[in-house]
Amino acid sequence: MTDSTPRPAIRSSRGRGRRPADEVRADVLRAVGEMLLRDGLAELSFERIAREAGVSKTTLYKWWPSVGALALEGYFHAVEDTLAFPDTGDIRADLTTQLHHFVALMTATPAGRLLTELIGRSQSDPELASEYRRLYSSGRRRLATVRLRRAQEAGQIRADVPVEVLVDQLWGAIYHRLLIPDEPVDEAYADVLIRNLFDGIA
Amino acid sequence: MTDSTPRPAIRSSRGRGRRPADEVRADVLRAVGEMLLRDGLAELSFERIAREAGVSKTTLYKWWPSVGALALEGYFHAVEDTLAFPDTGDIRADLTTQLHHFVALMTATPAGRLLTELIGRSQSDPELASEYRRLYSSGRRRLATVRLRRAQEAGQIRADVPVEVLVDQLWGAIYHRLLIPDEPVDEAYADVLIRNLFDGIA
Repeated sequence: MTDSTPRPAIRSSRGRGRRPADEVRADVLRAVGEMLLRDGLAELSFERIAREAGVSKTTLYKWWPSVGALALEGYFHAVEDTLAFPDTGDIRADLTTQLHHFVALMTATPAGRLLTELIGRSQSDPELASEYRRLYSSGRRRLATVRLRRAQEAGQIRADVPVEVLVDQLWGAIYHRLLIPDEPVDEAYADVLIRNLFDGIA
Repeated sequence: MTDSTPRPAIRSSRGRGRRPADEVRADVLRAVGEMLLRDGLAELSFERIAREAGVSKTTLYKWWPSVGALALEGYFHAVEDTLAFPDTGDIRADLTTQLHHFVALMTATPAGRLLTELIGRSQSDPELASEYRRLYSSGRRRLATVRLRRAQEAGQIRADVPVEVLVDQLWGAIYHRLLIPDEPVDEAYADVLIRNLFDGIA
């Protein structure tokens, strides 16, 4: 079997025909997400993704400009549910829930190592940096600000607070400790981040 | 002239004798700091530092385990005055002054590029990561918390606020935007960081 021959695993369940592209694409992203959360970034290559997802390398090259781009898109989908923003109507409780999930993901799975490595590499790789923003961070930022703006409309966050900045003072503060581990990252830390902002420190 | 021969420039002004080690050391750190703020990290090597500071490479190897370690120590000294923490008795005003200086340093000099590159490299280089914390970030953290604790004693920050966390929600939030430039870093941003914390966002 050559590299460009799909393995039987992804043959259509409806017979010998080709499966629709969006199904194959979703399967690849799912496989990449699983590989990343299991093994981290080090093991990832188009070769191995093609083997594990049962698609040809040609297909991968056609859809993704680089392994980094594919990794970022796969990771975004893999953590979408874990990092979903609940809306119980209480922004403080919902942020606590979401940030606890985020802390657990970053500290108890390879996700933390993966993201800090991608952020690290992107400091000297402008293409990866722009892919990181396009395929991961800008999307996560958007999801956070949607929930924060809803809280603002509900009067739970003051109208004159630019919610973009809260993203940096909550998730950004956690990234700061992940990237420069002078101090620990745990649920208590996340709770203080929220308390400082909602109660004020003065 | 061989590499291990000091250039005349660092010969003692008091004659042909050797200069005291701490003077030479201070001169090397000063030269490295100037080189970093002028040219960034890319141009830095023991070879070039030896040439510019007029000391032997042997001396550099004896005092610093790596170019990274020397760069970090030189940078720490180079920015110590710019990033000093004023104490006028008003913590909010003093943080504004300091953060404006920090923003200017990070955005208008090669310092921002230098630090993000060092943080970036340290994600896949455990030795550099530990040097970064030992020679730079832990020292900066200490200076910040000293000023914040004084404000706490003066009753300008609530007694139950762990000031360590404020470091992440002020400077850490700025690093977050420098490392993942989804949003701009400017004085207005620094002002909002301070306002969110002191006034509270609820």
